[in-house]
Amino acid sequence: MYKVGIDLGGTNIKAGIVDAQYHIVKQASVPTQAERTYQEIVKDMAMLVKHLMEETGICEEEVEGIGIGSPGMIDAKEGVVVYSNNIRWDNVPLVQEMNSYFSCPVKISNDANCAALGEAKAGAAKGVPNVILLTLGTGVGGGIVVDGKLFEGGHAGGAELGHTMLVAGGEECTCGRRGCIEAYASATALIKEATRKALIHPESMMNILCKNDINNMNGKIPFDAAQAGDKAGKEVIDRYIRYLGESIADFVNIFRPDVVLLSGGVCNQGEKLTEPLNQYIKDKCFGGEKSFIPPVRCATLGNNAGIIGAASLI
Amino acid sequence: MYKVGIDLGGTNIKAGIVDAQYHIVKQASVPTQAERTYQEIVKDMAMLVKHLMEETGICEEEVEGIGIGSPGMIDAKEGVVVYSNNIRWDNVPLVQEMNSYFSCPVKISNDANCAALGEAKAGAAKGVPNVILLTLGTGVGGGIVVDGKLFEGGHAGGAELGHTMLVAGGEECTCGRRGCIEAYASATALIKEATRKALIHPESMMNILCKNDINNMNGKIPFDAAQAGDKAGKEVIDRYIRYLGESIADFVNIFRPDVVLLSGGVCNQGEKLTEPLNQYIKDKCFGGEKSFIPPVRCATLGNNAGIIGAASLI
Repeated sequence: MYKVGIDLGGTNIKAGIVDAQYHIVKQASVPTQAERTYQEIVKDMAMLVKHLMEETGICEEEVEGIGIGSPGMIDAKEGVVVYSNNIRWDNVPLVQEMNSYFSCPVKISNDANCAALGEAKAGAAKGVPNVILLTLGTGVGGGIVVDGKLFEGGHAGGAELGHTMLVAGGEECTCGRRGCIEAYASATALIKEATRKALIHPESMMNILCKNDINNMNGKIPFDAAQAGDKAGKEVIDRYIRYLGESIADFVNIFRPDVVLLSGGVCNQGEKLTEPLNQYIKDKCFGGEKSFIPPVRCATLGNNAGIIGAASLI
Repeated sequence: MYKVGIDLGGTNIKAGIVDAQYHIVKQASVPTQAERTYQEIVKDMAMLVKHLMEETGICEEEVEGIGIGSPGMIDAKEGVVVYSNNIRWDNVPLVQEMNSYFSCPVKISNDANCAALGEAKAGAAKGVPNVILLTLGTGVGGGIVVDGKLFEGGHAGGAELGHTMLVAGGEECTCGRRGCIEAYASATALIKEATRKALIHPESMMNILCKNDINNMNGKIPFDAAQAGDKAGKEVIDRYIRYLGESIADFVNIFRPDVVLLSGGVCNQGEKLTEPLNQYIKDKCFGGEKSFIPPVRCATLGNNAGIIGAASLI
């Protein structure tokens, strides 16, 4: 039997058919064109899946179900996208609409939740029962796996780990509060701080790595500069590790999982990211040495995380 | 059938027999004398329970099991107190030791976890499936009930909600980090801030309410002063509500429970505490009005929470 995973994004809709081992048999994508009605977008999602079925010769009877990962606040029980900034949806009955095209089960969840479940089923935490995943991108998403199952909260809008306070009254967050983890540990926050530092330190190697155009700043540059011994670059990375480390220690104290996973472009840094984090949290987790301190690792599903994660809902 | 609940504290061991409706049939206590060996202390716990059984004429066959709430880090699965500052225990096999006196099931958990489960079974959240409880005392303890069951974390040392960062680099916390919720939202933190404010504001009514001896400061005084219009008192309370409110919003974003409960002496303030908190969190929870915002309420089991909470483990 096969599963279908759909990764609904603000720019593209990606879909794939995965086999029982979570290998993607075939995938395809179409532009979301988010300004359209939800009925039009869902029709495209359905057509994309039907197209993949035709191409692979896999019929609906061979598909256990269709999982959809969507940005925004999802009511998984009701199958509704409560709202999403990216695709400007408000109370869209996504599961019901997809069920007008398919008779197999359709499930939805937040994209970060899907990523966590996908990693727990087929990625960096394969077979591990208790997993916390933080997606470090434009924002910070969170996914919680408890005893092998996704924990999405008692009501829609749980598992929003990126909107846990880190510095009350601190940096502005997209959610309207000041000082959330997202405002310190997202890739956006890293790039913002690197930009700030590079501008006030014209001697910093970060400016050379930017080819003297600060708009070229990215999340890799401060890591490269730090490794080469650049003082300003090192300060940017130390600050990032400190804030991300405090955030991870928080979730260890709350969930005490088997492993903490990180995903997003920052994870291309591999051990340059995880090694200092593993060091940092050692004496920050409640109970210190007397307690179980989970390892911090990078997610491994990479570009396929969206499709595999969504398929893992089934 | 009956259940036994034992509330193991640094000063006293309280035990009670509760009926199927979680009413305490009879209770008693003995001093902990925490400096003794754990075997001596557990023997006293067992004797206390046997004494209650004799007094009530309830025999062990009529008891479903014995639940024990203990301070510190508990490995509930293994039945071990990993460590506890209050009673200076290190890897004490509490369940095994109690089982040398009783053949019925014995279960243990952290005292704040017990309080949460007790409230969910018989108190302010009776019958409610998803509950977060914060105990506001010397420290801040946390209890998490998901789908009617206690969530204690993947490994021992989960649900330590009080040790979530609130102001990174801020006030020293007992756990060794700086800026945990405990350092801002505990009763201790409230009294500390009220003391600080009263000292720098000799005109504050708080000094009169202390009978001009700052050592008389308690958690009630700043509330009373604030209500009477005292500026310094109001600042203390506003700050406390703000920090506690941010903490509650965090746990709403993570767990999205049906209700958030508060317990501890501060709850004697009733609506003077909960009403401003309910107002405060309205636009702090992720998704704001579009999301479900749980009510904040005071726990109701009061002095019996320890015994009833422990019994509810069974």
